[in-house]
Amino acid sequence: MSGPSYVAVDWGTSSFRLWLMNAGGQVLGERRSDQGMTAAAKAGFASVLQSHLDALGVPAGLPVVICGMAGARQGWVEAGYIDTPAHLSDILKGAVVVSGQAREIRILPGIAQRDIAAPDVMRGEETQLLGALGLDPADAADVCMPGTHSKWVRVRGGAVARFATFMTGELFSAAARDTILSHAVGGAGETIDSDAFGAAVAEAFAAPALAANLLFRVRARQLLFGGSAEAARETISGTLIGIELAANLAERERATRVMLIASGRLQRLYQIAFERLSIPLNVVDAEEAVRRGLANAAAAIWQDGRINA
Amino acid sequence: MSGPSYVAVDWGTSSFRLWLMNAGGQVLGERRSDQGMTAAAKAGFASVLQSHLDALGVPAGLPVVICGMAGARQGWVEAGYIDTPAHLSDILKGAVVVSGQAREIRILPGIAQRDIAAPDVMRGEETQLLGALGLDPADAADVCMPGTHSKWVRVRGGAVARFATFMTGELFSAAARDTILSHAVGGAGETIDSDAFGAAVAEAFAAPALAANLLFRVRARQLLFGGSAEAARETISGTLIGIELAANLAERERATRVMLIASGRLQRLYQIAFERLSIPLNVVDAEEAVRRGLANAAAAIWQDGRINA
Repeated sequence: MSGPSYVAVDWGTSSFRLWLMNAGGQVLGERRSDQGMTAAAKAGFASVLQSHLDALGVPAGLPVVICGMAGARQGWVEAGYIDTPAHLSDILKGAVVVSGQAREIRILPGIAQRDIAAPDVMRGEETQLLGALGLDPADAADVCMPGTHSKWVRVRGGAVARFATFMTGELFSAAARDTILSHAVGGAGETIDSDAFGAAVAEAFAAPALAANLLFRVRARQLLFGGSAEAARETISGTLIGIELAANLAERERATRVMLIASGRLQRLYQIAFERLSIPLNVVDAEEAVRRGLANAAAAIWQDGRINA
Repeated sequence: MSGPSYVAVDWGTSSFRLWLMNAGGQVLGERRSDQGMTAAAKAGFASVLQSHLDALGVPAGLPVVICGMAGARQGWVEAGYIDTPAHLSDILKGAVVVSGQAREIRILPGIAQRDIAAPDVMRGEETQLLGALGLDPADAADVCMPGTHSKWVRVRGGAVARFATFMTGELFSAAARDTILSHAVGGAGETIDSDAFGAAVAEAFAAPALAANLLFRVRARQLLFGGSAEAARETISGTLIGIELAANLAERERATRVMLIASGRLQRLYQIAFERLSIPLNVVDAEEAVRRGLANAAAAIWQDGRINA
C-alpha cells in the first residue's frame, strides 16, 4: 500500500468527515466529528481542519480536497455553483483554492438549476454523483439521494440535466418534534415498524394531496385506537417519503432502474418503500460514494494534471 | 335589551374568549386572553374562569357553557366525543357538567370519526357548525374551517356525516419557523403578497405530490434570484393550502358552493385561494359562528328545556 497522497473532507451543515488517502484511493486514516459548517463557522474552519490533520499526523505538504457546505456563502470560502446542464467533470473546474494556507486546499462547487420556474441547488451531492457514476458516465441515470433535503437527479450524457430537492427529512423532523405529532412519537425506539411504514408509503403514494390529513390521522388514531410510538413515527416518515416517490415515480416507466445513494437507516427505509412499490433499484452506499467522488476529484486535480496542466 | 342570561366560553389550546350574553343572544360583555388550555392547566381552570367572570361582575347564579379544549383529556373535565354520523343536536346531549362548582357549568363534547382507516377528531369546530348551520339544518353543506388543524366537514341530513383534518396551519408554522425556510421568511411584514400566494396555490393544487419540492424552491429561489420575505412566506402558505384544496376539491363538482368558516388573515387567504380556483364560496365569520353556536346550545339547554326536561 502506498503512502499518504491527499486528504478528502466531506464538510456538511452538521457533520465533518475526513479521510487520509493514498494515490490508489485507499483509506489510511479517518476522522469524524459534529463540527459541521454551523459549528466550524464559530470555531474557525482552518483550526477545525488543522486539529484533525494533526490528530492523524498528516504531513505539512499534503493537499486537501473538500466538498459540501464549507463552500457555501456562510461557509469557509464560497465555491459558487456550476449550472445545469452540468457535466460531472465541470465540478473540478469550479474548485476554489483557499488562499493564505500553508498547504493547498480546494473546495468543490455545488450545482445550481437557474430555472425561475423550478430553481434548485445542491452542495455535496454532486460529489456523491461523481463517486457513484465517475467523471464521464456514458449511461443515463435517475438517482435518488435521500436526506434532510432529498435530491432526485436526472443524469444524461455525462451531465446533471435536471434535479429537484424535496424537504422530506427536514419536514419529518419538524413534524415529529414541533407539532402535535410529537405526543404520538415520543419514546419511539430504534426498531423500524416496517408494516406501518410500508402502508403509509402506499397510501401517500396513491393520494399525495392527502398528506396533511394522513399526518393528522397519526394523532387521531392514537387517541381513538392507541398504537405504538414506532408505528406513529414510521407512518409520518412513510407519508412524507410516499409523496416524494409519487412526485418522482408516479408517471415513470416502471421498468427503469433507479440508483439509490444512501446509508444506514435511510437506506433501509427507502429500500422498503421502493420494494413496496415494486420499483427496481441499485443501491450505492452514500459515504462510499462521497469518498470515491473526492478521490476522483483529487486524482483529476493532482495526478492526471488535467486541471493544473 | 334584556339582562344577562348566561356566559359563553370558547376555550381553545392557546386562547380563551368569554361573552356575557342575554336571552336574545346579544353580547353584553366580552373578555379575551391567551389563557388557553395549556396555560389554564397550570393556573387552574376554575380560577382562570372566575377571574374573568369577576372582571365583568357576572352574578353568582348565571350558568356557563364552554366549548373547545377545556373538554379534552388534558383539559378541565373530559367531555368525550359524540361519534359520526353526529347530528348537531346530539352535541347538547353530550354536554358534561363540571361538578363541585357554585354555578352550573357545562362543557360541550367534541366529535369523533371512529373509522380505523380514517380516524379523526374535532373539538370546538362542532360548536362553530352549530352556530353556522343551526341545530337541525335541512340542507346539505360542505364546510371548510381553516386553522392550525383545518377541518373539512360534510353535513348531510342535519348530521356531520364525515370529516377530515389537515395539519395545514401547524405545518406552516413548523416549516417557517423550524426549517431552512426560516431564513427565507425572516422579517416578513403584515402585507399579504397575493400574487405569490395565488401562484403557489395554483401550482400545488395542480401537482400536490410536489409539495416538499415546492417548499424547497422557496429557499433556492431566494438564493439564486432574490425576492421578498413576504413572497417567500405566502409561497409556503399557498403551497400548503393548495394541497389541502386539492385533496378536498379536485374531484368535486365545481358548481357546488363551499361554506368557509374563518376570520381575519386566514379568511382572506382562503378567499383568495378559492377565487383563484374559481370555486364559489359562502363566508361565515368564525368568531360569530362559535358565539352563535354557544348561544344555540345555551338556549336549548336552559331556555327550551330540551335537555333538562
